[in-house]
Amino acid sequence: MSAFKYFQEEWTPVINQYLEEYLASEVDDQKISQIMAYSVMAGGKRLRPLLFLATLNALGKEITTTEVRIACGIELIHTYSLIHDDLPAMDNDDYRRGKLTSHKKWGEAEAILAGDALLPMGIQWIAEGSNSAKLVAIITQAVGPNGMVGGQYLDIDSTNNASVAGDAKFINRMEWLKTGCLIQASVEMAAVYAKASQVEQVKLVGFAKVFGRSYQIYDDLVDVVETSEEAGKATHKDQEEGKNNTLTLLGIDRSRQELRDLIKQAQDDLHGLNGEVLAGFLALYQKVL
Amino acid sequence: MSAFKYFQEEWTPVINQYLEEYLASEVDDQKISQIMAYSVMAGGKRLRPLLFLATLNALGKEITTTEVRIACGIELIHTYSLIHDDLPAMDNDDYRRGKLTSHKKWGEAEAILAGDALLPMGIQWIAEGSNSAKLVAIITQAVGPNGMVGGQYLDIDSTNNASVAGDAKFINRMEWLKTGCLIQASVEMAAVYAKASQVEQVKLVGFAKVFGRSYQIYDDLVDVVETSEEAGKATHKDQEEGKNNTLTLLGIDRSRQELRDLIKQAQDDLHGLNGEVLAGFLALYQKVL
Repeated sequence: MSAFKYFQEEWTPVINQYLEEYLASEVDDQKISQIMAYSVMAGGKRLRPLLFLATLNALGKEITTTEVRIACGIELIHTYSLIHDDLPAMDNDDYRRGKLTSHKKWGEAEAILAGDALLPMGIQWIAEGSNSAKLVAIITQAVGPNGMVGGQYLDIDSTNNASVAGDAKFINRMEWLKTGCLIQASVEMAAVYAKASQVEQVKLVGFAKVFGRSYQIYDDLVDVVETSEEAGKATHKDQEEGKNNTLTLLGIDRSRQELRDLIKQAQDDLHGLNGEVLAGFLALYQKVL
Repeated sequence: MSAFKYFQEEWTPVINQYLEEYLASEVDDQKISQIMAYSVMAGGKRLRPLLFLATLNALGKEITTTEVRIACGIELIHTYSLIHDDLPAMDNDDYRRGKLTSHKKWGEAEAILAGDALLPMGIQWIAEGSNSAKLVAIITQAVGPNGMVGGQYLDIDSTNNASVAGDAKFINRMEWLKTGCLIQASVEMAAVYAKASQVEQVKLVGFAKVFGRSYQIYDDLVDVVETSEEAGKATHKDQEEGKNNTLTLLGIDRSRQELRDLIKQAQDDLHGLNGEVLAGFLALYQKVL
């Protein structure tokens, strides 16, 4: 078993258990707790919390409940973004990960509020786990108007806008903000938290930037390569809805080549670090190559 | 001129200028910046940032741009809550402060995202201004599922629910979460930031709790006492929509009496503090008494 697989199998259940236990015990109202947990516990890969923990691992930092709290805070924030992206006014999706989306299951007001509850609670866990205003500044910038939400806005604003369909610079920027920023923040927070040296920080942020970029291409490829059943949500949907992404720009073959190039680049960035586990995240992409 | 009036007239323009300047300069995308600023600059009273600054004043802490950044972060968060409350799936309001609500002006996706951008940016300003993870923990708890969003959820969940129409305990709790928590947090953050003594903290938090409770009663009274034109939004609406609040529970006369009692209590809480400016906030209520 690879170092990554071993790490993943060790920490994924710890993350899942922490999320389940503390969403139940730290949210007073049982109904909104249930609505929040419905989406958080819907079977995600826990990519971002695992990245945070794997970066700590690369830096030789011990992982205790405190670090798991920070990692799980990132997952709460990621889940909020999925709930709001699925809303009728946004992507209007009925299913995610094979289950009804939050608004289809609980109602639209409930879904908006579940997202609005997960975002500050995620930041709270990060603040309390790290006791660091610097980590809070990193995560809030990554998900604010110059980060994830800004990317979602560009996406909404440009859907069915033919003038940006071939604008690679615009599409790269939009995809980076939507997905890359939060992935980079997961690694960067770990580097700051573990007091990485300047050289380590540069390498890790370099890796995170390339990994974040490649993850979006992977995600777009999943949308066309997998059947709807495998992906657990409506696939082939981006194209039908006039969404602009690297895939619609480059086509499948050139997107795959771009992904291969980025994997190589990410591996190079880890050179000289204890990054065996981190490098293992790149294996995720094999199924679309 | 009262100490409060003087303070208000000194700092309100500073707050307004800071908000306008930094929403423009710190948000990269001009369109989303414009949508955010539309609601932030819609002419609010700046009650929460003024409360934060007035509490610093009561503790003898100097106010510089750093403290104004924290205060304005609270206002960004308050504005996010108004935008989301007005959404079609929530209170479905067309006007606020005499202007079209965000979703009526810009579209529903845009309004959701403007709120989603203001919340983390507000927390970012608080984190950067204070460099304190403790302040972040206070604000995120106040607006999360055990605070403001939890109250909004109870409101949505109980509207037109006859079984809670006469349940004073439920209504008190809902109103406290919806409005009181953020007001208390504005005072509490200032007390922690200015390193208030234990005795000062207890008095200030006591004041903030009573002020937060009384503010909700005031807000409900405005809804029936003022004409729609004066309030800048649809009034008499709560009753028509089956909303449960202290007013529907007690009626106008007993609500006014409750408000008078709370004003007295808040004044007592400030005894022994340099709280002349803070006490002035209670004068706001005169117009509904």
